[in-house]
Amino acid sequence: MGRDELRQMLERLRRERPLVHNITNYVVMNFTANTLLAMGASPVMAHALDEVEEMVSLARALVLNIGTLSGEWIEAMLRAGKRANALGIPVVLDPVGSGATRLRTEASRRLCKELSLSVVRGNPSEILSFEDVASRTQGVDTAHAVDQASRAAQTLARRTGSVVAVTGEVDMITDGDRRILCRNGHPLLGRVTGTGCAATAAIAAFAGISDEPIQAAAAGLAFFGLGGEIAASRTKSTGSFMISLIDALYEIGPEDLQERARLEDGSFDGQ
Amino acid sequence: MGRDELRQMLERLRRERPLVHNITNYVVMNFTANTLLAMGASPVMAHALDEVEEMVSLARALVLNIGTLSGEWIEAMLRAGKRANALGIPVVLDPVGSGATRLRTEASRRLCKELSLSVVRGNPSEILSFEDVASRTQGVDTAHAVDQASRAAQTLARRTGSVVAVTGEVDMITDGDRRILCRNGHPLLGRVTGTGCAATAAIAAFAGISDEPIQAAAAGLAFFGLGGEIAASRTKSTGSFMISLIDALYEIGPEDLQERARLEDGSFDGQ
Amino acid sequence: MGRDELRQMLERLRRERPLVHNITNYVVMNFTANTLLAMGASPVMAHALDEVEEMVSLARALVLNIGTLSGEWIEAMLRAGKRANALGIPVVLDPVGSGATRLRTEASRRLCKELSLSVVRGNPSEILSFEDVASRTQGVDTAHAVDQASRAAQTLARRTGSVVAVTGEVDMITDGDRRILCRNGHPLLGRVTGTGCAATAAIAAFAGISDEPIQAAAAGLAFFGLGGEIAASRTKSTGSFMISLIDALYEIGPEDLQERARLEDGSFDGQ
Repeated sequence: MGRDELRQMLERLRRERPLVHNITNYVVMNFTANTLLAMGASPVMAHALDEVEEMVSLARALVLNIGTLSGEWIEAMLRAGKRANALGIPVVLDPVGSGATRLRTEASRRLCKELSLSVVRGNPSEILSFEDVASRTQGVDTAHAVDQASRAAQTLARRTGSVVAVTGEVDMITDGDRRILCRNGHPLLGRVTGTGCAATAAIAAFAGISDEPIQAAAAGLAFFGLGGEIAASRTKSTGSFMISLIDALYEIGPEDLQERARLEDGSFDGQ
Repeated sequence: MGRDELRQMLERLRRERPLVHNITNYVVMNFTANTLLAMGASPVMAHALDEVEEMVSLARALVLNIGTLSGEWIEAMLRAGKRANALGIPVVLDPVGSGATRLRTEASRRLCKELSLSVVRGNPSEILSFEDVASRTQGVDTAHAVDQASRAAQTLARRTGSVVAVTGEVDMITDGDRRILCRNGHPLLGRVTGTGCAATAAIAAFAGISDEPIQAAAAGLAFFGLGGEIAASRTKSTGSFMISLIDALYEIGPEDLQERARLEDGSFDGQ
Repeated sequence: MGRDELRQMLERLRRERPLVHNITNYVVMNFTANTLLAMGASPVMAHALDEVEEMVSLARALVLNIGTLSGEWIEAMLRAGKRANALGIPVVLDPVGSGATRLRTEASRRLCKELSLSVVRGNPSEILSFEDVASRTQGVDTAHAVDQASRAAQTLARRTGSVVAVTGEVDMITDGDRRILCRNGHPLLGRVTGTGCAATAAIAAFAGISDEPIQAAAAGLAFFGLGGEIAASRTKSTGSFMISLIDALYEIGPEDLQERARLEDGSFDGQ
C-alpha cells in the first residue's frame, strides 16, 4: 500500500466528509462522534428499528458496535446491515466483548453470518471468539498473543470474505491472503475508554471513500494510531491524552499521514 | 432587547440555578449536563414513562431532543411535555435530524402539534422539515441557506405560537413578527458533537428564569456563541475547544454577556 | 484505618486491575469508564437481561446506579445483583435522584431489600430517601445537612448490614457503629456531572480488592477527593477541571494517597 495512496485517501476524506452511520454502544457514542468530526467525517447515531434503514441509505458507511448490546439493538443492526449490503454501503463490525458473554459471542457470529461485512476489527480475544472453541475473555481488554489471534483472523477472513483487523501493540490486518502490519499507536490508548471503538469508526470513515476495505482498515488504524502517538508526545496522563488525541486527529494532514504511517505489507508465508 | 436585561438574566440564572429536565439523546447527555452545570443551571436527565411527569414537575424548564429517538421515548416526551404545559413550565424542542428520516420528521411535527412549545431550535434543514414539502437533509449538519429556513421559521412561529430559532453562521430568532439576529459563535462549534443540543439546553436554562421565550432564546444563543468565541481564542483544535468551551461557559460573567452579546433586533419587513 | 493500609490497597488495585461491572446511567458511562481506567481498574458496562449474570460472574465488583432508570434496567440490576451476592462479589449502589421520583425511591429501596449491598453511596437527600418519611429532593444535587443524613445512614447501615456513605463537604462513612469522616474533595466536583457516580465506581474498584467494605468506601472517597484537590490546584474552570481530575486519578501514587488522605476514624458516640 503506497504512501501516496494514504495521502490521497485522507485528502478525499477531508473533501467529501462522508456520513458515517453508527449503531454503537452508549459508552462511546460521544467520543466516536467527536473522533469522526475531528478527522473530517460526518457522524450520525440512530438505532430505532423504524429509522435505521432510511438513515443508512443516506450514509457512506455503517458501523455496528455491540458494546452495550440488547436484543432490539441486534435486530436494528441486522436491518441496517442488510439495507447497507443491498445498497453497496460498507459495513464495519466492532465485536466489543465478544467471547465474554454468550449474548455477545452469538450476536457477533450472527452479524458475521447474515451480513456481508467489509471489515471486522477487534482485540485478540474478540477475534478468537469467532473460532468454534472460543476462549473466554476476562472482560473486554485482555490481550492474548497477537500470533494466535492472527491465525483466527486469517480463518475468519477466508471464510467470510471480510477484512479482519486484530489490534494490539502491533495491528494485523488481513483479507485472508494479504497481511498488513500497522505499528502506529501508543500504550496510553489502552487507558482511555472507547479508543478501539473510535479506531473502528475511523476505518469506517475511510471505507466510505475507498473501494478497498483492506486499505480503509490500514489507513484508519495508521491514522488513529498516529493520533495516539502525537497525543502521547504532549501529555502522559489519560484525561488530557483523550483530549489531545481528538486534537491530533483534527490536525493530522494528508502529508503527515503519508510520512508517519508505519505500515508493512506482506502475505501469510508458510501458513 | 436591552443589554441590561441580558446581564440581569444571567445574574438571575446564576442565583436561582434552575433545574432543567432533559429528555435528550445518548450522544450528548454528558456534554449537555456539563454545559448546564457550567453556566449555573442544574441538569437532570430522566426518560422513563413512569417518572417523567413527576420529574418535570420539579423542574423550571424541559428540553425535548430527538437525537437518538425510539418509539417509547416519543411517548415519554409527550407525557412530560403535557405535564409541563399544564404547569406552565417552558418546553424547548431540538428536532435533531428532522427531515433525515420519517421517524424524526413525524416525531418533530407531532411534538409541535400536541404540545405548546416555548422555543424550537434547529439548523436550517431541521426547521425546513416542518414545511409540507420537506427537503431531505444529508445527515444532521447540512446547511441550507439561512434565508430559506428563515421564512420557514416565521411560518412555523406564526402557526404554533412558538419562538423558532434557526442557527447557523448567523442565528435568527423569531416569534413570527419580531426577528432577532445573533452573530455570536464560531465555526469550530460545528466540529464538536452536541453543540447545537447544548445551545438548546442553554436556551432552556434561560427560559427557566424568564417569562419571554424570545429573550430566553436570544440570551441562550448569545451566551453559548460567546462561549465558542472565547474557546476559539484559546485553541484551534476540536478536542481542547470542547473543553475550553465548557470552561468559557463557566467563566462568562453577566457583564461579559452584556458587553459582548451581538444581537440585532428587528422585524420581518416586507414579508 | 491506617495509612499503610491505604497505600497497600492502591498498590493492590494497580497490580490486579479488578474488572468492575457497571449497570449505570447513560450520562456518566463514559466518565465512569475513564475514571476506572485512570485509577487502574478495568471497566465493563453491560445491562442486557440476557448477559448481566454472565458478565458479573467475570467481575470483582458490581456498580448499580439508577441515574437514568427504566423498568427493564431495574430487573437487570436485580438479576446481576443476585448473582453477585451468590458469588460473593461486592455490590455497590448509587441511588441517584432517589427521593426525587417514586420510581427512583422505590427502586432504591427494592435493590436495598432484595440484595445484600456492600456499600451504598449517596448525597444527603438520596440517603434520607430510605427513611419512611422521605423528604423530596429538588433534583439530584440538593444539600440537606450532613448531620440529618448521617443519622439516616446509621439507621440504614444497621438495618441492612451495608456500609453507607453520605457525601458532601465532608463525607461520612458508617457501618452502623464505626464512623469514618473523609475531608478530601473540592467544591468544583459539584460542578461536573457524574463525579458522584464516579466516586461510587472508585469505591467499587477498591471493594474489588478488599474484604472490608468500610475500608473500600473510605479509600475510594479519599482517593477520588484527592483527585479533585489536585485538579483544583491546576485549573479553576469546570471543563478543564474534569480533564485534570482524570489526569490526577491516573497520577496519584500509593504514597500520595498514604500521605494526603484526610480520614478520621471514630464511632457514633452518644447516639
